[in-house]
Amino acid sequence: MTRKILVLPGDGIGPEITAQASRVLAACQARGLDVEVEEAPVGGTAYDLEGSPLPESTLAKARAADAVLLGAVGGPKWDKLEDISKRPEKGLLGLRKELGLFGNLRPALLYPQLAEASSLKPELVSGLDIMIVRELTGGIYFGQPRGIEERDGQRVGYNTYVYSEAEIERIGRVAFEMAQKRAKKLCSVDKANVLEVTMLWREVMERLAPEYPDVELSHMYVDNAAMQLVRAPKQFDVVVTGNMFGDILSDAAAMLTGSIGMLPSASLNESGQGMYEPCHGSAPDIAGQNVANPLATILSVAMMLRYSLGEAALAERIEAAVGKVLDEGLRTADIAAEGERAVSTSEMGDAVLAAF
Amino acid sequence: MTRKILVLPGDGIGPEITAQASRVLAACQARGLDVEVEEAPVGGTAYDLEGSPLPESTLAKARAADAVLLGAVGGPKWDKLEDISKRPEKGLLGLRKELGLFGNLRPALLYPQLAEASSLKPELVSGLDIMIVRELTGGIYFGQPRGIEERDGQRVGYNTYVYSEAEIERIGRVAFEMAQKRAKKLCSVDKANVLEVTMLWREVMERLAPEYPDVELSHMYVDNAAMQLVRAPKQFDVVVTGNMFGDILSDAAAMLTGSIGMLPSASLNESGQGMYEPCHGSAPDIAGQNVANPLATILSVAMMLRYSLGEAALAERIEAAVGKVLDEGLRTADIAAEGERAVSTSEMGDAVLAAF
Ligand SMILES: CC(C)[C@H](C(=O)O)[C@@H](O)C(=O)O
Ligand SMILES: CC(C)[C@H](C(=O)O)[C@@H](O)C(=O)O
Repeated sequence: MTRKILVLPGDGIGPEITAQASRVLAACQARGLDVEVEEAPVGGTAYDLEGSPLPESTLAKARAADAVLLGAVGGPKWDKLEDISKRPEKGLLGLRKELGLFGNLRPALLYPQLAEASSLKPELVSGLDIMIVRELTGGIYFGQPRGIEERDGQRVGYNTYVYSEAEIERIGRVAFEMAQKRAKKLCSVDKANVLEVTMLWREVMERLAPEYPDVELSHMYVDNAAMQLVRAPKQFDVVVTGNMFGDILSDAAAMLTGSIGMLPSASLNESGQGMYEPCHGSAPDIAGQNVANPLATILSVAMMLRYSLGEAALAERIEAAVGKVLDEGLRTADIAAEGERAVSTSEMGDAVLAAF
Repeated sequence: MTRKILVLPGDGIGPEITAQASRVLAACQARGLDVEVEEAPVGGTAYDLEGSPLPESTLAKARAADAVLLGAVGGPKWDKLEDISKRPEKGLLGLRKELGLFGNLRPALLYPQLAEASSLKPELVSGLDIMIVRELTGGIYFGQPRGIEERDGQRVGYNTYVYSEAEIERIGRVAFEMAQKRAKKLCSVDKANVLEVTMLWREVMERLAPEYPDVELSHMYVDNAAMQLVRAPKQFDVVVTGNMFGDILSDAAAMLTGSIGMLPSASLNESGQGMYEPCHGSAPDIAGQNVANPLATILSVAMMLRYSLGEAALAERIEAAVGKVLDEGLRTADIAAEGERAVSTSEMGDAVLAAF
């Protein structure tokens, strides 16, 4: 059965990096992967074309796809849009919500070839391999009520941080299962000493724990987790947390590797359908220059093969090819050491294809 | 006029470290500082004694004081208290709220003598000097409604992230004024691409900016701020943000220095009354062993002298004394390098007094 993949290039460097990832997908097709690949607009680009960051036709194609590959959305061009429902980010948030992509997997993996790039001392990060499991369709990102309104003669802004037991349990299971496949340590991050919503979070994680007796569950307050990531990141295996804390901690963890241009991510729903995207953003400052690092997007294709298409062998081939080009010393500007020659986006794509 | 200082030792290592700070206060009195010093219980200790983490008598004394010196609150002994209004943290949060201590100043300063202690590469942190200005009496910490309740047959936890224009303006002014006294750069951290409450935050910061034309205002999303703190922390001078983001970022920033046992903090209200406390917590694992680092608490006395008592000269003397003991190579266990001899809490106090 032919599976469907939808590529959403998006804004900024999105089109350049997804172009390289699409070449890798095509190479997989040449090796027998039976997929149909389509493209559609999203984000600011979609707003410019069709007046919406998530056009109906794009959403329909995404629903029909087995997996979505997203470049990145956003840019200064759209930051001043008065109607915030039209901002590029709303395209991304809309996709997550509409497709029910509640389980966000964000690996923070240090490539040994790039150990130098970390701002931390080498002994603290060598071998770093953390998987952050972030809840992606609930919490304060989507909570109601929300808005800005006048109260007693002045404006007040408000948002609601809310989770139900079912939402917490669902992401908890993803995290426990992930821990079972890894080093069997799960750290749940909350602020249960202050926020009721995270007291419930902690309680549900505790309740699930006996079902996963091989996993060691611990809890950490979010402020301490931010400290521990800086102090001794290798203490973590799998981290599970809500949407907002996950946004912050996964970016901090990614940056520990010093090479955020290398990190893919997956966002999954209950039926295994997924959206795959690099951890980095749309980098409007370097867009269109053929200098962006396409590897995070190429590695997102590998995640897609593994998690949504059941093609672990092909996923490993891609990861091995990326390892090989790093071994050969190829570096885009973001990961090049001082004085080292940087290759272009497309040269990096060429090299991965050659190594594939 | 004799000013009043209230010392709240609190829990864990609190009593040991405030004891050393009180000796420094006494030394200031011997040099002519006209203050009356009293003590009262707070936190778990107060709960054990009087059934409340913030007894009425403690609160009354705090209100009557010109400044409060707090050790730390909390510990595993009280973590399982069913009635969360009795938890030690509620004593701290109650003091902040009741005294109106909205302006929390959290310096992240790298002591050159301790540069080795940072987990970051030396060139990235040498000379690090960031001031995080955190809003402390609003935001999601205190927002209503909040709770855990049954909806459609399952429990739901919820909290409210809310700020009024007046609250934002008030902390904004503290931050702009702080920037004027420093390197004149202010970075406001929000999540304005997702949360309405922080859209209002950003708008108010923008509105204030023209009143402080010598300060360069920038904005950063909280996820990016967490990354930038790891990547290139010296780009920051003053950072202003809300209660929750400030909790996370100030701990991450403190940990960049590698010596959180050195960092004081101040929490001020509109009339300059303040509460001063170390950034670190109650460290129950080492409580009662005379090994904790008292320097953050001693430096909190210096902040108190500067911000609430108008005694900048005495503050500088304390800071100089701390610098001197570091120069002499004295280290408590938390800041001692491997193999280096560690001094005790009271020995460190002795040394500061000798250098004072
Ligand atoms: C673009 C933004 C809305 C998004 C988020 O906050 O989730 C991004 O930071 C991310 O982490 O994917
Ligand atoms: C103890 C806790 C309630 C407190 C907070 O979250 O504000 C602490 O982490 C702090 O930063 O002072």
